[in-house]
Amino acid sequence: MFLSEIAKLLGVAFTGSDPVITGVSTVEEAASTDITFLSNPHYTEKAKATKAGAIIVKQKLDINIPQIVVDNPSIAFAKVVRAVCPVKTHNPGISELAYKDPSADISATATVYPYAYVGKNARIEGGCVLYPGCFIGDDAIIREGTILYPNVAVYDKCEVGKNCIIHAGVVIGSDGFGFAWDGKQHLKIPQVGKVIIGDDVEIGSNCCIDRAALTSTRIGSDVKMDNLVQIGHNVTIGDHTIIVSQVGIAGSAHVGKHVILAGQAGVAGHITIGDGCVVGGKAGVAEDIEPGKVVSGYPTMDHKLWLRAQNAFKKLPDLLKRIRDIERRLEKIEKD
Amino acid sequence: MFLSEIAKLLGVAFTGSDPVITGVSTVEEAASTDITFLSNPHYTEKAKATKAGAIIVKQKLDINIPQIVVDNPSIAFAKVVRAVCPVKTHNPGISELAYKDPSADISATATVYPYAYVGKNARIEGGCVLYPGCFIGDDAIIREGTILYPNVAVYDKCEVGKNCIIHAGVVIGSDGFGFAWDGKQHLKIPQVGKVIIGDDVEIGSNCCIDRAALTSTRIGSDVKMDNLVQIGHNVTIGDHTIIVSQVGIAGSAHVGKHVILAGQAGVAGHITIGDGCVVGGKAGVAEDIEPGKVVSGYPTMDHKLWLRAQNAFKKLPDLLKRIRDIERRLEKIEKD
Amino acid sequence: MFLSEIAKLLGVAFTGSDPVITGVSTVEEAASTDITFLSNPHYTEKAKATKAGAIIVKQKLDINIPQIVVDNPSIAFAKVVRAVCPVKTHNPGISELAYKDPSADISATATVYPYAYVGKNARIEGGCVLYPGCFIGDDAIIREGTILYPNVAVYDKCEVGKNCIIHAGVVIGSDGFGFAWDGKQHLKIPQVGKVIIGDDVEIGSNCCIDRAALTSTRIGSDVKMDNLVQIGHNVTIGDHTIIVSQVGIAGSAHVGKHVILAGQAGVAGHITIGDGCVVGGKAGVAEDIEPGKVVSGYPTMDHKLWLRAQNAFKKLPDLLKRIRDIERRLEKIEKD
Repeated sequence: MFLSEIAKLLGVAFTGSDPVITGVSTVEEAASTDITFLSNPHYTEKAKATKAGAIIVKQKLDINIPQIVVDNPSIAFAKVVRAVCPVKTHNPGISELAYKDPSADISATATVYPYAYVGKNARIEGGCVLYPGCFIGDDAIIREGTILYPNVAVYDKCEVGKNCIIHAGVVIGSDGFGFAWDGKQHLKIPQVGKVIIGDDVEIGSNCCIDRAALTSTRIGSDVKMDNLVQIGHNVTIGDHTIIVSQVGIAGSAHVGKHVILAGQAGVAGHITIGDGCVVGGKAGVAEDIEPGKVVSGYPTMDHKLWLRAQNAFKKLPDLLKRIRDIERRLEKIEKD
Repeated sequence: MFLSEIAKLLGVAFTGSDPVITGVSTVEEAASTDITFLSNPHYTEKAKATKAGAIIVKQKLDINIPQIVVDNPSIAFAKVVRAVCPVKTHNPGISELAYKDPSADISATATVYPYAYVGKNARIEGGCVLYPGCFIGDDAIIREGTILYPNVAVYDKCEVGKNCIIHAGVVIGSDGFGFAWDGKQHLKIPQVGKVIIGDDVEIGSNCCIDRAALTSTRIGSDVKMDNLVQIGHNVTIGDHTIIVSQVGIAGSAHVGKHVILAGQAGVAGHITIGDGCVVGGKAGVAEDIEPGKVVSGYPTMDHKLWLRAQNAFKKLPDLLKRIRDIERRLEKIEKD
Repeated sequence: MFLSEIAKLLGVAFTGSDPVITGVSTVEEAASTDITFLSNPHYTEKAKATKAGAIIVKQKLDINIPQIVVDNPSIAFAKVVRAVCPVKTHNPGISELAYKDPSADISATATVYPYAYVGKNARIEGGCVLYPGCFIGDDAIIREGTILYPNVAVYDKCEVGKNCIIHAGVVIGSDGFGFAWDGKQHLKIPQVGKVIIGDDVEIGSNCCIDRAALTSTRIGSDVKMDNLVQIGHNVTIGDHTIIVSQVGIAGSAHVGKHVILAGQAGVAGHITIGDGCVVGGKAGVAEDIEPGKVVSGYPTMDHKLWLRAQNAFKKLPDLLKRIRDIERRLEKIEKD
């Protein structure tokens, strides 16, 4: 691809030398036929030393390689990667080594790899890909264009929306964690609900999303979930929300739209987190949070307060000494 | 099912209108042919607004729909759900698409789905269900009535008790984490023990339970484990213990009976947690805990103390100022 | 095996009674034909009460069973376990129930179990074992002597080194978590890099290692990873590093050699942790750490400072009272 073609793709005017670009890379590792990008000004010095054949930037750098100037280099670069890197294609059809219940409805444009299993009355729509080892339970629905990587399990009745990407080992629809002590042992409260996942959702490897006790656990559209996330039964997640790795959300919590939950955060059951909130890494949300708040800590507090409190925390041993000293001096004064 | 039949099932006297009940639901989502329940008085107002055809309560509400009064609405409702919702049935037999080693012993009443693998001398007892992609290692035993959801791996020699429910992606019997530094690299300490799981245990999706180095990692009966829990080698867990999602228990820890470990808590190696303890969410247990204690924090302390300390923590920045102010005033007094 | 043979294996002089040893066990559970060991002096009393037929120790104990004295009982015992316990063997060959793309290159000495899938141009070298349900993507490489337990997924192009042990459910090469907000929704930044894993690496069950956005996520040689660990895209891990269960390492973090990350610790993105560092359990690393440091807490601080600060933390409620008392007394003095 000529660099001028890339500029055209991005809708940007372009003049000057027009090298052929065959790959994409980081500023550090790019070779002379690669294009790279600078998004974070923090890495400007590294970018100036790049050996790339071209670079996408927000502001023109004082260097001697062709530059494409755009408003948002990350987005522009993402588009270039899509254009330059071949997208994996699949041969539609159901492998002879896969299992399809006779009552299942699999689109002719879907690809079902060996050792995938599709249960009774399940529906796999057009363009879907089921990698080896995927399990689609009875009455489950996988909508158009969704990819399930190896060994994904979708329990009975659960629904996954359009154009989702579900990574390997994800479990959708396992039983919610509900028991009642009957005096002798824990009685299982049957979990007869399901999971409904919106469109354009990405779910990282080995995440677990439990089915509702009675109704539906709901994941909104354009939700992006990193690896090893836990979603309890009856949880609802609003559209566009970002959930970073190893977050756990307990049963019946409601997370709004455009929320960011940073890595290893936890949310207690029955909590409501308003739209646009940001919850810090390792935070423990134990009470409702109003829309737009930025919180950290466990229990959570305003993020800036938490930063100052954590800073003071380091001084605690010193503080203890100062208080002891104050008490001695006070005692002396009182004696006198 | 008539409501009177439900009352009979629960052993409760019943008079008045006797609607037909066809489903179960929450107070919010129930329709006129559903039955619902009120367990937590916190939701009384919501319950009063329900459109359900009947409700199970602990104390009669001032509303105009048929009510069934019981001591424990959660348990009563669980029983009703079991009665109303059809339980999934399986056709016993070994799928032609499954693999059974000739030496394996699989009961005629067990169901083995496609792509399940049963190794040498393994034993699958009556009524068991192995979903697609399950792996049962050599000499492993799965006792009567246990269900393994898709892609569960039970390593060689491990034993799972009766009537257990093991959710998708669970790994039972992977090697414990044991290495000795030999001056040049980490020497693997062979993990030649196994895992023994009691009866009526439920294990959530993608949990990992390591085999013992030499003897057995033991999970007691009626233990309930949520998703993504980590159990190290040689750990023992007492009967009836509840382990919430993303808890991690390090090697050789001993957790008593009737313990509750809340979400994302961690337990250090070789620790003993006494019977009946409650460990708070995100807590880090780094020393033994006496039976019956309720602890939180890292390292753990009495839960109430932790609550007060966390409350004080938020005031730390303010406290720092007050101490600086005190020191100034003191200095002034001392000068005078 | 005679005890004298074991002594010979360990290169240790040996005289006295020479029992036959048929098994290995812990000091508590050993029977009279077992050998056991004492590594941690903390357990000396238990060791003295052992019913083992022989014991490996660092310093001779005052007991009446044959003892083998060595410098490092753990390593010696590991060697004995390897000698006494039969190692599992596999019959090389590709199961008729496995899938091999015609273009894949599988060594004649590799073992491929039923329901494993090997993609286009993938290479499986000599002595490798692919348990049931493993997925090897196109162009992936598994080098000599590596074992993949059930349901491991290795995405396209990823490389696993020699003599690695990858436990069940591990995912290698799923997409890194990268998105750019385009004003309407999250645009996926294509993840076109790969994962490269060194030699002698062990990875615990259900770990997730994401592929790089453009280049490679790199795991050094002799790295040992416990269960449920998360490794983000573009992360690099140095040789010999130990990563305990449920640790999460965010994208582009660089972890040095010989580092220890204790359970449930988290590392933020783009952080560098120097060689030889020790990061405490549940710690949250939010800034670079110089080589050789021992840190704890979130944000991290010197481990000893953290211990003292945590100790002071418990006294916070009391401290608050003391400060209030001080202020009252001060006010009284100022009035006078």
